[in-house]
Amino acid sequence: MSTTDAGGPAPRRGRPTVLDRGAVATATFRLWTEHGYDAVGWSDIAEATGVSVRTLVRHFSRKSEIAWVGVPAATKRLREALRATPDDLPVGDAVRRSVLASVSHDPMLASAGVDWVRVVYAQEEIAGSAGAAYRPWIEELAGYIAGRVPEITRAAATAVASGYQAATFAALVAWSEGGARGDAVAATDEALRWLEIPPRPRTG
Amino acid sequence: MSTTDAGGPAPRRGRPTVLDRGAVATATFRLWTEHGYDAVGWSDIAEATGVSVRTLVRHFSRKSEIAWVGVPAATKRLREALRATPDDLPVGDAVRRSVLASVSHDPMLASAGVDWVRVVYAQEEIAGSAGAAYRPWIEELAGYIAGRVPEITRAAATAVASGYQAATFAALVAWSEGGARGDAVAATDEALRWLEIPPRPRTG
Repeated sequence: MSTTDAGGPAPRRGRPTVLDRGAVATATFRLWTEHGYDAVGWSDIAEATGVSVRTLVRHFSRKSEIAWVGVPAATKRLREALRATPDDLPVGDAVRRSVLASVSHDPMLASAGVDWVRVVYAQEEIAGSAGAAYRPWIEELAGYIAGRVPEITRAAATAVASGYQAATFAALVAWSEGGARGDAVAATDEALRWLEIPPRPRTG
Repeated sequence: MSTTDAGGPAPRRGRPTVLDRGAVATATFRLWTEHGYDAVGWSDIAEATGVSVRTLVRHFSRKSEIAWVGVPAATKRLREALRATPDDLPVGDAVRRSVLASVSHDPMLASAGVDWVRVVYAQEEIAGSAGAAYRPWIEELAGYIAGRVPEITRAAATAVASGYQAATFAALVAWSEGGARGDAVAATDEALRWLEIPPRPRTG
């Protein structure tokens, strides 16, 4: 499997290698699911993927980073869903539906389901880095909210978007910890229905 | 300052020492503010507090844990504010006001202000552990929301409370990154005014 490491001729010293990050993540998720997050070291990931430890640590500064290789795709799904939203839909509904679109088409969630959520969402080291990892996703959502809601500041829009990200995350953790009954997306939907973005700031 | 380490006679092997966690945190915050989070090691903290490295690492499994010694007091302030809230106040206002009470009386925020926020909120390793560290605070808020809102599930209430925690955190980070103009609590208030908890779930 060393072709994963470099698709063409042997790379020169210091030249960035071409790495299939998704393939590394899929293999690593499988190892995490089977053996637990803490038991899997860089050498195990190297063995499962055929990518050298040296190349892996050049691409991922921390093991937990591997959990977040899906964020660019999730951000793209979120952006496309937000763009496809009609302007007359209340902003809270628009945000909730687009967040669900971002979550529901996640290939990891679809293929590995509860195992993936247990590993990625409920593992403290990984969960702890979620907010930082999802920053592009949060900024995408904040941009939409700022465009839809008159008067809101960009800082407040970012705070609200961060709130939606954390609520989504917490809903998936609760779903996983509660025995993963029913559908993960439905559980997220149920939680996000209890958040609203008012057209004007609360005054109470 | 070795009296901080053990108030009474020399502790027996393995006996938990009595440690003034708040005093350790205050000294550590000062070091972080002066030298930056990454530059401060356990030995620096030991030197500044008179507590041995061995005792410190027995009480704090990670350096970032020192940032969260104020969470029990913040949780207590939140609980007291929620209990003092009249039942006829809309739940979103009750939550926002109580969160602000929890934040505004934070002694670290009051004494160190922007420096403390810069270190604690904007430092990635610390910010990454915020959600886990604030779990008791989140559960306190979730319990209140579950008691106030008919129909909401406990999982959804926890998700909403997690959203409020993250929004509060993001507001303080934005305030800090934006040059800390104005008051930190006012910035948090401004952000939380854009979140609402509906009396019934959204149906759109």
